[in-house]
Amino acid sequence: MKIIETVAEMREFIAAKRQAGKTIGLVPTMGALHEGHLTLMRTAKAKCDVVVASIFVNPTQFGPNEDLDSYPRDLAGDAVKAESAGVEAIFHPQPSEMYSAGYATYINVEGITDKLCGKSRPGHFRGVATVVSKLFNIVQPDTAFFGQKDAQQVAVIERMVRDLNMAIQIEVVTIVREADGLARSSRNTYLSKEEREAALVLSRSLRLASEAAAKGERKAAALKSLVETEIKGESLAKIEYVEIYSYPDLAEIEEVKETALLAVAVRFGTTRLIDNIIFNN
Amino acid sequence: MKIIETVAEMREFIAAKRQAGKTIGLVPTMGALHEGHLTLMRTAKAKCDVVVASIFVNPTQFGPNEDLDSYPRDLAGDAVKAESAGVEAIFHPQPSEMYSAGYATYINVEGITDKLCGKSRPGHFRGVATVVSKLFNIVQPDTAFFGQKDAQQVAVIERMVRDLNMAIQIEVVTIVREADGLARSSRNTYLSKEEREAALVLSRSLRLASEAAAKGERKAAALKSLVETEIKGESLAKIEYVEIYSYPDLAEIEEVKETALLAVAVRFGTTRLIDNIIFNN
Repeated sequence: MKIIETVAEMREFIAAKRQAGKTIGLVPTMGALHEGHLTLMRTAKAKCDVVVASIFVNPTQFGPNEDLDSYPRDLAGDAVKAESAGVEAIFHPQPSEMYSAGYATYINVEGITDKLCGKSRPGHFRGVATVVSKLFNIVQPDTAFFGQKDAQQVAVIERMVRDLNMAIQIEVVTIVREADGLARSSRNTYLSKEEREAALVLSRSLRLASEAAAKGERKAAALKSLVETEIKGESLAKIEYVEIYSYPDLAEIEEVKETALLAVAVRFGTTRLIDNIIFNN
Repeated sequence: MKIIETVAEMREFIAAKRQAGKTIGLVPTMGALHEGHLTLMRTAKAKCDVVVASIFVNPTQFGPNEDLDSYPRDLAGDAVKAESAGVEAIFHPQPSEMYSAGYATYINVEGITDKLCGKSRPGHFRGVATVVSKLFNIVQPDTAFFGQKDAQQVAVIERMVRDLNMAIQIEVVTIVREADGLARSSRNTYLSKEEREAALVLSRSLRLASEAAAKGERKAAALKSLVETEIKGESLAKIEYVEIYSYPDLAEIEEVKETALLAVAVRFGTTRLIDNIIFNN
């Protein structure tokens, strides 16, 4: 497996694969790879001839008081995991390779980026859309793979791809969880033993909502309330949001009729975790 | 020559050309083709196997009080001209084909879009960058051709292409003028006979600055003042701006040392015309 640090070298790698008639799958990541990422890579490998994973902790999607500096980085460990999941090249540029002097161009997906995580993280999805668009232009994959864990990110990227006529397929892979239900996240490593235990309230509360919906509950307020009450029962949990929106257009809904997203963001100490379920009606 | 109205059909046309190993040149226009556009097309034909011209009066680059509705449209006439200049396909989508319901994604090139035309036309370059990026993704040309007449637009597009790592070459073609010096523009058709005569002050004033620079004048203020004085001598002319900036980064300069842009925007009645010269030192 190759580790590629420059745009020029990445383009060369891709050009050679294209010449050989290979299809390309891209898995954009920020590294600190876990089973969620590896599932994306294995899915990509099953669908494309060549899988490229990017590992780039993108500064433009972090706010000034966020965890850019402390975000876990482990390129050597990531390389072993990615190779085992079928990745042929890791694109691992330095920030200066991606954002050179005078950098000035940003992509905004309006509307759906104002709510959920976009509300407490202004500029986050601008950074995400921008870097993903750059990665798409550098790697020019046939298909790019994203996790449903970041449901709003998926909605933003799908909207951007459609709006800007990008010739790329987006594949979304369901949330991978620990055996006890905690959604895999690179930020789980921040949790103390007590917080790790407390964080189980996320998947537990979503399961309650899922069960209620299965039994016929359609009222958004009732489903939200179930989740909120459960999370408030956990003293280490501080709710940032519990929201239900139509999906992927993130419009306000009173009843869950079409596809809808129930998404939560909760702090445990200084660690902010997100989780969600999608109702497909 | 083909006239193509849908993204899907455009992609099919391009895919067939790619399969045949052809290189593609794109000339984005808003139609009302004049000799400036035709020069772009002929230049494209000299450099690429297949030339596609887009004709799309892009609503997102017009302000609420601008000339979107009255902008000259003449597809039949344009088709004849484009074909004679070597164009193999015109991409002529309806606005709804480019901006469908729920459209939400815009590209901003920051900084250089705040000055010159960007100052009096807020949102204009956001619309330009967005639609050009869409056209690039739809046509996927090797090279795209733009006129130096829209010098700030060129700077914005070159910055966007570099920042977002778009795999496209940008070629810039010098300003094409009428025999008497007036820069070709689709908006020249708006001018009355008197305004058409008065508008010659633009090229005349720029020529004065050019001659002064050739004789050694380096002070930006002095060169600007020459142009302003000349334009103010024409009673039908109303200056919007006369500016000198470094080019293409559009930074303030006191002396013309490196490449610099002297750009003017002037109204003649309700018609707003722009013109410019580039100093290459």
